[in-house]
Amino acid sequence: MALDPTKHPDWQIAQDAEKSMKTVETLAAELGLEKDELLPYGHYMGKIEQQAVLRRLADRPNGKYVDVTAITPTPLGEGKSTTTIGLVQGLSKRGVKTTAAIRQPSGGPTMGMKGSAAGGGLAQCIPLTPYSLNFTGDIHAITSAHNLAMVALTSRMQHERNYDDEKLERLSGMRRLNIDPTRVGMGWAMDFCCQALRNIIIGIEGDGRRNDGFMMRSHFDITAASEIMSIMSLARDLPDLRKRLSRVVLAFDRAGNPVTTADLEVDGAMMAWLLEASKPNLIQTIEGQPVLVHAGPFGNIALGQSSIIADRVALKLSDIHVTESGFGSEIGYEKFWNVKCHMSGLKPDAAVIVATVRALKNHGGAQPPMPGRPLPEPYTREDVGLVEAGCVNLLRHIGIVRRSGVSPVVCINAFATDSKNEIAAIRRICEEAGARVALSEHWLKGGDGALELADAVMDACNEPNNFAPLYDWSMPFEQRIETIAREVYGADGVEFSSLARQRIKELQARPDAEELGICMVKTQYSLSDNPALKGAPTGWRLHVRDCLFYGGAGLVVPVAGDISLMPGTGSRPAFRNVDVDLESGQVTGLF
Amino acid sequence: MALDPTKHPDWQIAQDAEKSMKTVETLAAELGLEKDELLPYGHYMGKIEQQAVLRRLADRPNGKYVDVTAITPTPLGEGKSTTTIGLVQGLSKRGVKTTAAIRQPSGGPTMGMKGSAAGGGLAQCIPLTPYSLNFTGDIHAITSAHNLAMVALTSRMQHERNYDDEKLERLSGMRRLNIDPTRVGMGWAMDFCCQALRNIIIGIEGDGRRNDGFMMRSHFDITAASEIMSIMSLARDLPDLRKRLSRVVLAFDRAGNPVTTADLEVDGAMMAWLLEASKPNLIQTIEGQPVLVHAGPFGNIALGQSSIIADRVALKLSDIHVTESGFGSEIGYEKFWNVKCHMSGLKPDAAVIVATVRALKNHGGAQPPMPGRPLPEPYTREDVGLVEAGCVNLLRHIGIVRRSGVSPVVCINAFATDSKNEIAAIRRICEEAGARVALSEHWLKGGDGALELADAVMDACNEPNNFAPLYDWSMPFEQRIETIAREVYGADGVEFSSLARQRIKELQARPDAEELGICMVKTQYSLSDNPALKGAPTGWRLHVRDCLFYGGAGLVVPVAGDISLMPGTGSRPAFRNVDVDLESGQVTGLF
Repeated sequence: MALDPTKHPDWQIAQDAEKSMKTVETLAAELGLEKDELLPYGHYMGKIEQQAVLRRLADRPNGKYVDVTAITPTPLGEGKSTTTIGLVQGLSKRGVKTTAAIRQPSGGPTMGMKGSAAGGGLAQCIPLTPYSLNFTGDIHAITSAHNLAMVALTSRMQHERNYDDEKLERLSGMRRLNIDPTRVGMGWAMDFCCQALRNIIIGIEGDGRRNDGFMMRSHFDITAASEIMSIMSLARDLPDLRKRLSRVVLAFDRAGNPVTTADLEVDGAMMAWLLEASKPNLIQTIEGQPVLVHAGPFGNIALGQSSIIADRVALKLSDIHVTESGFGSEIGYEKFWNVKCHMSGLKPDAAVIVATVRALKNHGGAQPPMPGRPLPEPYTREDVGLVEAGCVNLLRHIGIVRRSGVSPVVCINAFATDSKNEIAAIRRICEEAGARVALSEHWLKGGDGALELADAVMDACNEPNNFAPLYDWSMPFEQRIETIAREVYGADGVEFSSLARQRIKELQARPDAEELGICMVKTQYSLSDNPALKGAPTGWRLHVRDCLFYGGAGLVVPVAGDISLMPGTGSRPAFRNVDVDLESGQVTGLF
Repeated sequence: MALDPTKHPDWQIAQDAEKSMKTVETLAAELGLEKDELLPYGHYMGKIEQQAVLRRLADRPNGKYVDVTAITPTPLGEGKSTTTIGLVQGLSKRGVKTTAAIRQPSGGPTMGMKGSAAGGGLAQCIPLTPYSLNFTGDIHAITSAHNLAMVALTSRMQHERNYDDEKLERLSGMRRLNIDPTRVGMGWAMDFCCQALRNIIIGIEGDGRRNDGFMMRSHFDITAASEIMSIMSLARDLPDLRKRLSRVVLAFDRAGNPVTTADLEVDGAMMAWLLEASKPNLIQTIEGQPVLVHAGPFGNIALGQSSIIADRVALKLSDIHVTESGFGSEIGYEKFWNVKCHMSGLKPDAAVIVATVRALKNHGGAQPPMPGRPLPEPYTREDVGLVEAGCVNLLRHIGIVRRSGVSPVVCINAFATDSKNEIAAIRRICEEAGARVALSEHWLKGGDGALELADAVMDACNEPNNFAPLYDWSMPFEQRIETIAREVYGADGVEFSSLARQRIKELQARPDAEELGICMVKTQYSLSDNPALKGAPTGWRLHVRDCLFYGGAGLVVPVAGDISLMPGTGSRPAFRNVDVDLESGQVTGLF
């Protein structure tokens, strides 16, 4: 009997559920893995030998493929992971063989604001602590591979400055790369929210020293936003991963040619650091369903998709596989639709849009709730008018999913404070729009609370759909960005800064332009590029201020609005609540 | 039948041996662990639930305790880990139940210069690849805990600048700490050799922005040199670890008071990140003996000791436990003797000094060999005169170990290029000095090559010794430093910079001064603070230019000479050789 989520924090529910969880060997056997295909990490976590599974099951047909996305969230999050977990718990109650794929939480939000990212209430995955902290080391390995590339670049710049061609060749067997210090695009990675490292100067030389690096501007991004994380999401298999790692562009030389990881001869070593991280992780829900965890979050400033490898493996092992994409549908689902599915060749059978009364009230006009602070008054009482007004946001997300050719299932993720009238209003508005809708109480009741959702998703999966890309990859980048802005975000058009226009022009000249996808960077707190605009903003234009290039991931990355790839830690950081009970050796205070 | 080390690189020998290695479950059972006391990480690595083992075996007497140290090494290393592994292989051939404790390799040397740090030839530990790269994540967890403290510090400095007292209290419940930006001692951690991050400026603000941090000088150190790594080495158990983590001093406030991890309320979260890392790791030698791996290397710029926890566990499980301390005896053994044993309460029964013909030739006058470059000519032919001349260095290390009250065993770590006459000269000089000496061919022959060494060590263990500290901890820090410089390094005295003198004076005023140890930072390439001075330098004075304070580890850290806590990556980096075989999924090129 699980603990009552209205009376216990998530970490207590998790610790209680962990007392009776399955060993990872049992979990893997139930999932249909052979003994050699599981690498245990402790008794309750493991890695899946994906190469072996995909080889063995190459001829087995895939299960149904469901993506979970959301309306535009508040800073508290609207329970997308919770719903993903709740949905597989509900499907399992209906006798369906099912799996979930979620993303490993980042240390940034876990220590900064949002808690565990393992779901919540009675829809969580366990074991909670290792999942929330170091887990099996994937994010650390990605951080290491990323920073190793920067070590190679910056030490090379120092040696090229210090030595003439002859000495460079003799000492190191290196040819001169002539890296342009004003065109170093790549920064460093750290998996925390750390504004202090957002803009830095590196390589400051001591008096009379020339071995302290090469002085230049640089920056750290959060690891989830690292190109290496995008590569881990998008790689289909080991050879594809290896190829992508060789194509990462760190900088340009003085003649304007890209300087890659292959030029620095660091791509093989990066692959070595990532070998274990390329294997998806296996844990379980508190009701015992298998959950694959692979790649990282942050759909706003990164791809933010669970990995293609994890989805490919899971689709071979289950009848319905539920994957997750970050934040609202204009961000996470758009990238799932136009980038991830393009690269995987997979097509979804259904898509779930998670909505909450809380977020709808925010879109209807209530001030946003903030982590660690008391909920503003409108969230604590019934206000059907606010909810109805906020449904303009939900309707736009329904439209976005429909635009992809898929008929969405709206999931109302129920909270104890929701009123019947508020729920009824959402239901009515969705039904008037012709969308499937299900009230789901998985947070309160686990799988038993998600039966309506499970039924609606099974129903949607059995309906044929017309999933098709938003745009043709032969279109120029500017047109593709314009198409996303107008048809997905609802903008009137796009303003490019001169810097962004220049960068895009250079990228457009690449012979592989048609093989590069668009991965937008944009705030998650609005359909627009201005986090203050709630609801369904109209009469605005998207401002693209820069455009990054992830040559290995195969992505052109336009940056819209003020958003940074390194979030900050606020004045009420979550780390203050976390500790260890020395007697039991258990971590406390994770959400 | 193991591969021939004269024909195969280390990684090929390891991969071959891995085909027939024991599962970690078998290894743990042979070691005497109960089923619940092992956490498997994959099939061949695991973590030991140290709390459970130490509780269960509290009344069992400890085995014999042997430390492996070395003469002053060349940049190629003289095989200290190789000898540690070879010795347990040899002891096992003699029927002794034995364990080794070594330190997890750092990504810096592994990717920069030195290869795997898993030993070499037929004295290695396996599985090589995970051991050499991410392993079970301990160094990553230490990096994360360290950087989380810096996130807490730097974000707090930003918020305290931006808000007045009233708003600070209201927004965050924080009191003002008034951190002095000119007295921030702690930097960030990264586990690579990265000169570009040695001196940096952080928190550069964009135009009109005040949420981009707090602009100030900062620095990255290699994770092995992080105070958190020293804490992991020195903690006796979980409560001790927790207590030490709360006492880390990051900075001083404007009134001169220390600002600690506890003040920042980040110590509990750091403990949570380190919980798994506090459990020692278990792997095996290529001949199947158990090897505990815990804490990190770099005895020159850090403590560089395998952990007290690992030694405590291993001493309960074996008859002879062999632990390792970094670099030459004046560095690694001195810290083992005067810091680690003081804090653990343990005493060694024997100490091994590893010597090579190669290093002795260097001390005799040959120019130092460099990684990745051809060996200079004197190393490729017999030169008894050079070796004899170099023995002044060996004799000083014999003197250092004797000064601790322990009679040393000199291990001549044999190379294929050594001549009989060179070996005979070393033997004669050691015997004239009254020291035990053993020629050991473990690199070439594994345990069968280490029988003479094993016998000498068993012999030494059965001899009573008078192990006693070099100095009393009630002595002032300056006197303690002077004692180390004169009696261990052979200096004529110490010159303190005015900065160092000021720092030491402040530390001396602390009420806990008598509970703080001395952890010297000094080049490993000379007994002196000048890496160019080989042999046994005399007529010099130690220059202490700075003094750091590791309040959590309980260490005063004088910095001598020019050495930096962030090494650099040279012009022939090892990462260029590393790659993955995509067919087998195996890492290639690790040494």
